[in-house]
Amino acid sequence: MQRILSTQLPAHIGETVRLAGWVHRRRLLKSVAFLIVRDRAGLSQVVVTDPGVRAQIEAVGEETAVELTGEAVANAAAPAGVEVVEPLVRVLGATAEPPPFDLFRPELGATLPTQLDHASLSLRHATRASALRVSAAAVAGFRSTLDGLGFVEVHTPKIVASSTESGANVFAIDYFGRPAFLAQSPQFYKQVMVGVFERVYEVGPVFRAEPHETGRHLAQYTSLDAELGFVEDHRDVMAVLAEVIRGMVAATGLPAALPAEFPALHFTEALKIAGAPPDEPDSVSSPVRRVAGTRRDEQGPVDLAPAHERAVGEWALAEHGSDVVFVTGYPAAKRPFYTHPDPTRPGYTNGFDLLFRGVELVTGGQRLHRYEDYVAALAARGEPLAPYESYVEAFRHGMPPHGGFAIGLERFVARLTGAANVREVTAFPRDRHRLTP
Amino acid sequence: MQRILSTQLPAHIGETVRLAGWVHRRRLLKSVAFLIVRDRAGLSQVVVTDPGVRAQIEAVGEETAVELTGEAVANAAAPAGVEVVEPLVRVLGATAEPPPFDLFRPELGATLPTQLDHASLSLRHATRASALRVSAAAVAGFRSTLDGLGFVEVHTPKIVASSTESGANVFAIDYFGRPAFLAQSPQFYKQVMVGVFERVYEVGPVFRAEPHETGRHLAQYTSLDAELGFVEDHRDVMAVLAEVIRGMVAATGLPAALPAEFPALHFTEALKIAGAPPDEPDSVSSPVRRVAGTRRDEQGPVDLAPAHERAVGEWALAEHGSDVVFVTGYPAAKRPFYTHPDPTRPGYTNGFDLLFRGVELVTGGQRLHRYEDYVAALAARGEPLAPYESYVEAFRHGMPPHGGFAIGLERFVARLTGAANVREVTAFPRDRHRLTP
Repeated sequence: MQRILSTQLPAHIGETVRLAGWVHRRRLLKSVAFLIVRDRAGLSQVVVTDPGVRAQIEAVGEETAVELTGEAVANAAAPAGVEVVEPLVRVLGATAEPPPFDLFRPELGATLPTQLDHASLSLRHATRASALRVSAAAVAGFRSTLDGLGFVEVHTPKIVASSTESGANVFAIDYFGRPAFLAQSPQFYKQVMVGVFERVYEVGPVFRAEPHETGRHLAQYTSLDAELGFVEDHRDVMAVLAEVIRGMVAATGLPAALPAEFPALHFTEALKIAGAPPDEPDSVSSPVRRVAGTRRDEQGPVDLAPAHERAVGEWALAEHGSDVVFVTGYPAAKRPFYTHPDPTRPGYTNGFDLLFRGVELVTGGQRLHRYEDYVAALAARGEPLAPYESYVEAFRHGMPPHGGFAIGLERFVARLTGAANVREVTAFPRDRHRLTP
Repeated sequence: MQRILSTQLPAHIGETVRLAGWVHRRRLLKSVAFLIVRDRAGLSQVVVTDPGVRAQIEAVGEETAVELTGEAVANAAAPAGVEVVEPLVRVLGATAEPPPFDLFRPELGATLPTQLDHASLSLRHATRASALRVSAAAVAGFRSTLDGLGFVEVHTPKIVASSTESGANVFAIDYFGRPAFLAQSPQFYKQVMVGVFERVYEVGPVFRAEPHETGRHLAQYTSLDAELGFVEDHRDVMAVLAEVIRGMVAATGLPAALPAEFPALHFTEALKIAGAPPDEPDSVSSPVRRVAGTRRDEQGPVDLAPAHERAVGEWALAEHGSDVVFVTGYPAAKRPFYTHPDPTRPGYTNGFDLLFRGVELVTGGQRLHRYEDYVAALAARGEPLAPYESYVEAFRHGMPPHGGFAIGLERFVARLTGAANVREVTAFPRDRHRLTP
C-alpha cells in the first residue's frame, strides 16, 4: 500500500491507509490512547483501543519513527475532520530515546544554546522548522525574480588567494602547503561575470572571522549576491533589488510593508533623522578613520550604528508605512575601494544599504568599471595592486558600468519571522564559540 | 530611449533603437565598416559608412563596451534579417585593450591553462559561456524536480570540526585559533535534516584536497546533494535520482539517451563486464584494503577504475541504448561507514553509483539509520565515536530508513557538453596548482 501524507487523509475517508512519520505526542487515557503522528506535511490523529497496540505505543517514546496502517474515519472533532482508527503500528529503526526537550509544545522551552547544541532535534520543532522553510522560500523567490530578469546563476570559488573585503576577519587555510583564505564575498567574481553574462547571481556561503558575538553576525552565512551591467548608476541596481525583495517576501507568504516605491534617504539625511552627529566624509586616503557614531559592520562593508538604523527604520515606518528604506550616498571612506563615487558630490559614493525593519539587510552600489579607476582607488588607499591583478584584468578589456548587491539570507529571515537572533533561523550556525554540530 | 537586446531587433524594424554590448568583431571594408555587437542575448550587425563614426570604430578595439543608437532596417542578408545602420556610438567606460586571444572565432585558440589564467576573458567566449549556461540550467532542473517531489532546500556548514568522508584530502583551517576543516560533503547534515523535513537537498561547494591533477577532479566543486527518508531501501533513492537526472537533462535542452528504466548492474556483474578480476568483499574491519582493479575515487567515496567505468558505459549504450547505468551493491569495504549493508548479501551494501557516459557521476545509497548500527560500524572500522557524536545524536531519537545521493555538477556538464576536462565547464577552477583567478 502506498504511503499517504497527513494532508491527504481527508481524501481517503473510509479507506485503509498507510501513514509514516514521527510519534509527535501520545495521550494515554484510560480506555483509549491518542497518538499524534508528524510527517513532512503536518499532523495526524490516530486512535488506539486495542490493548496490544496500546502497549506498543506506551513503549515507543516521542520522536520514534513509525509506520501505521489503519482506517481513516470522519470525526468532526479531529484535526481536519479525520482520524485513523485501530492501526497496526510498526517501529521504523529503533525506539527513540526521550529528547532533551519537548518538541510537541507550542514553544521550544530550551535556551538557545541548548537548542543549538542539540540542533538535530530542536530543528524538528515547528518554530525552527518553519523558519527554515521560510528561508528556502525566500531563496526560491530571489532566484525566480532574477531568472525572470535574465540573470544567470554562477558558482564561484570559496578559496581565494587574497581577502576580498578587508584584510581583517578572514579565515586562513592551508592550501596544499600555501596560504589561502575563505572568500568573504563573491564580489570580484560576480563583477567579472558581468563581462560574460551582463547579469549574474549566486547563492552561496561566505565566511567572516567575526570576533564579536552578536545576534546578527555569523562566521558563515548565506549571501544572496547579484550584479548587473549596463546600468546608468546605482538607481538601476536599487530598482532590481526592490523587485527582488518583493519577490522574496511574496514567496514566503509572510506579511511585510513594501510600498510601490521604497523610500530612500541620503546618508547625511539618515544621520540627521537618527540624531547622529553630521558626517564629514573622509578623504579616501584614510579609510580606517571612523566617523563618530558610525561603525564598521563586518557583514556589510560599513553602515550606520545599530541604534541609528533602528531610528531610520522607525522613520520609514512612520513616514512611509514602509518596512524598508534605502540609505544612499555613503561616504567613500566608509565603502570598499571598488565603490563608484557620486559624480555630483565629492567624497560621497553611489553605494547604498537597504534597511529592513531597522536592520541593515543589503549592501550594494555602483562599482568602478575603468581599469585606471581601480589603479587610482587602490593607490589612494595605500593598497598594492598585485593581489588584485587577476581581478582587475577584466577591467582592461571592456567592462560596462555595473553594480550589484548582497542580501544576508539569515538576517532577512530573522527580521521577517521576528526572530531576535540569526541563530534561530540558521540550521547549524557557526560563530567564534560554535563549531559543532 | 530604452535599450533593447539583439534578439528584439526584428520587432523594431523601421525604428530608431538603442543597443548596448561589447564590440565582438569589426570588419573594416573600403567603403563600409561592419560592427558585430554582442549582448547577453546574442549578436547584432551594425553598418557604418559615416567617416567620423568609422574613425571611432577603428579606434575602439574588440571587447570595448559600447552603446549604439541607430535605425533598425530589414536586410535579408543580415543575421535574423535585420541590421542597424548609421549609428551613433558611445564608448562605455574605456577602450578595451586587445585580449590575449580572439573571442570572435568559433573555437578558442588558446590552451586550457592560458584560458584559465585569463578566465575573465575566456569565459566571454561562446563555448565557455554556453557551458556555464548549461550548468545553470542543470541546477535549475535539479531544484525544480526535487521541489516537485516535496524536498526542502537547506544550507549547511562548510566549516566542520571533523572530516566527513575520510581523514585524507581535507583542507585544514584556522578557526579562531582552533583547528577545523572544510566540509568534503554535506553528508551528515543532510541525513540529520531528514529528521526535520524527510526530504532535503542542497546545492553548494564541497572541498577536497585532491592530490592528483586529472580532468575530472577539482579542489572545490559544486555538489548537488539530496536525501530522503521513509524509503524501503536504495531503490527508492535510485528512482528519485533517475527523475532528477531526467529533469536536469531536460532543463538543458541537450540530448542524452535516458531510457524509461535506467539499466542497473550489481557491482560483481559490472566487474565481469569490465573484464576486471572478480571482487571478494573485504571485511568492514579492513577498510583500507583495495581490491585489485579498483581504486578509491576521492570525489565519490569509492568506485570502479576509470577503464572499468568506460567499459560498463559502453555496455549500457550497446545493450540498452543508454547513456546512464547504475552500479549497485558495492562491497562494504569500498563504502563509507554510514552505508547500509545489503541485508541479503553479506559483505555488500545498498550503496550505488550512477555512471553517465562511462564516468562516475553520482554516488548514493541507503544509509544506516539506527544509533547502534553507527556505533558498531565505527567500531568495526577502528574509528572512534567521539568526533561523530553530534552527528549520530539524531539517530538516538528516531530516524527512519533513508538514503540519498550526490551529483557532481561539473562532471555532469562536462559529459553532457562533451568537454574533456571539468575545468572547461567551471568558471574559476581550483586545483593543487591553481588558486587564481
